[in-house]
Amino acid sequence: MKLYTYGTAPNPRKVAIFLKEKGIDYEAVEVDMMKGEHKTPEFLLKNPSGKLPVLELADGRYLAESIAICRYLEAEYPEPNLFGSDAYELGFIEMRNRQMETELWSQIGQSWVHGPIVAKMGIYRTIPEAKEVSDSNVKKYYERLDREFADNEYVAGDRFTVADITLLTGIDFASTLVGLKPDAALTNLWRWHALMLARESVDDIINANENS
Amino acid sequence: MKLYTYGTAPNPRKVAIFLKEKGIDYEAVEVDMMKGEHKTPEFLLKNPSGKLPVLELADGRYLAESIAICRYLEAEYPEPNLFGSDAYELGFIEMRNRQMETELWSQIGQSWVHGPIVAKMGIYRTIPEAKEVSDSNVKKYYERLDREFADNEYVAGDRFTVADITLLTGIDFASTLVGLKPDAALTNLWRWHALMLARESVDDIINANENS
Repeated sequence: MKLYTYGTAPNPRKVAIFLKEKGIDYEAVEVDMMKGEHKTPEFLLKNPSGKLPVLELADGRYLAESIAICRYLEAEYPEPNLFGSDAYELGFIEMRNRQMETELWSQIGQSWVHGPIVAKMGIYRTIPEAKEVSDSNVKKYYERLDREFADNEYVAGDRFTVADITLLTGIDFASTLVGLKPDAALTNLWRWHALMLARESVDDIINANENS
Repeated sequence: MKLYTYGTAPNPRKVAIFLKEKGIDYEAVEVDMMKGEHKTPEFLLKNPSGKLPVLELADGRYLAESIAICRYLEAEYPEPNLFGSDAYELGFIEMRNRQMETELWSQIGQSWVHGPIVAKMGIYRTIPEAKEVSDSNVKKYYERLDREFADNEYVAGDRFTVADITLLTGIDFASTLVGLKPDAALTNLWRWHALMLARESVDDIINANENS
């Protein structure tokens, strides 16, 4: 199994942590997004959307979209369970994962797209006013998360799930590349963050890069 | 089972079509978003995010996020299968569903948020330049879909799935409320659209409202 990935990009990291949690061996293939290698005709045969990550299965088929890849892996390697067991839990974890995506990641993404690094790439039209709105939304959402973590150890109840991976990679990206690190006063959020960094899977993927 | 819903809002419609496809009886409870009924303290106990739809289970628990509700329903009522059977298909349908969301719905959402109806509500900061960008992205994506439908009968391969419901409700919303109806020249896309409207579930939810 091959995972096409790039440096510290957050979506490939999501899958990398998921693979480590499952204990699955794989080959990582770097695709240099800065050189546009994810937009070449050859790469578009793997993923017509021209995005990372992409998983190449042993039989040569491909899957794109980080959570779709994780869901495939969950079906092939059911333990440890990261998406839920009974019907309600499957729905609840999906709900929490999607809230992290639609309510936080979407706003981090807006701040990234309209921020200085992407502006230098010259691939999107930068709208500073849009960044002001999304920056503010991200900060408000961090405060909501802090209130939620006062009563919940993890994102989806009382155990580690894919929703924690989604939140962690989002916050890590926001902190290191988008200038949106959560305020130190949000102690519940930081307590959860420390719990995440203590995991071997996270240490391998997030800390290894940050210390290199 | 109760579904908290509102008029022709696209996310509740997604779940309504899904319920019809599964042949599940439920009670629809209208929550008047124009009166802010989805933001009352009482409703926030059902869904702290203050969004529709929300499913209330027979035992009084709640689930929010349309696709999370659908995934719960798929686990409780497995037939007809709408999310995939084997591991690869589970991943593939998730991938296609997410592409419809992240590549099309997200842009329709931007055009909606920065468009005239939401501007009148006065709840978001309207950025006309952002709408120009997303309008253009939606039109380009319709053209991509048209090319894809030249070779594929459905969104995720050769059968009807949740990814078709996601695309249909997105295009219906864009056409009726966001001023982004696909061009008549996109004949493959319209061929797929006619195939959707011929389904009883879609006829009950989409056509019933449009003709009322």
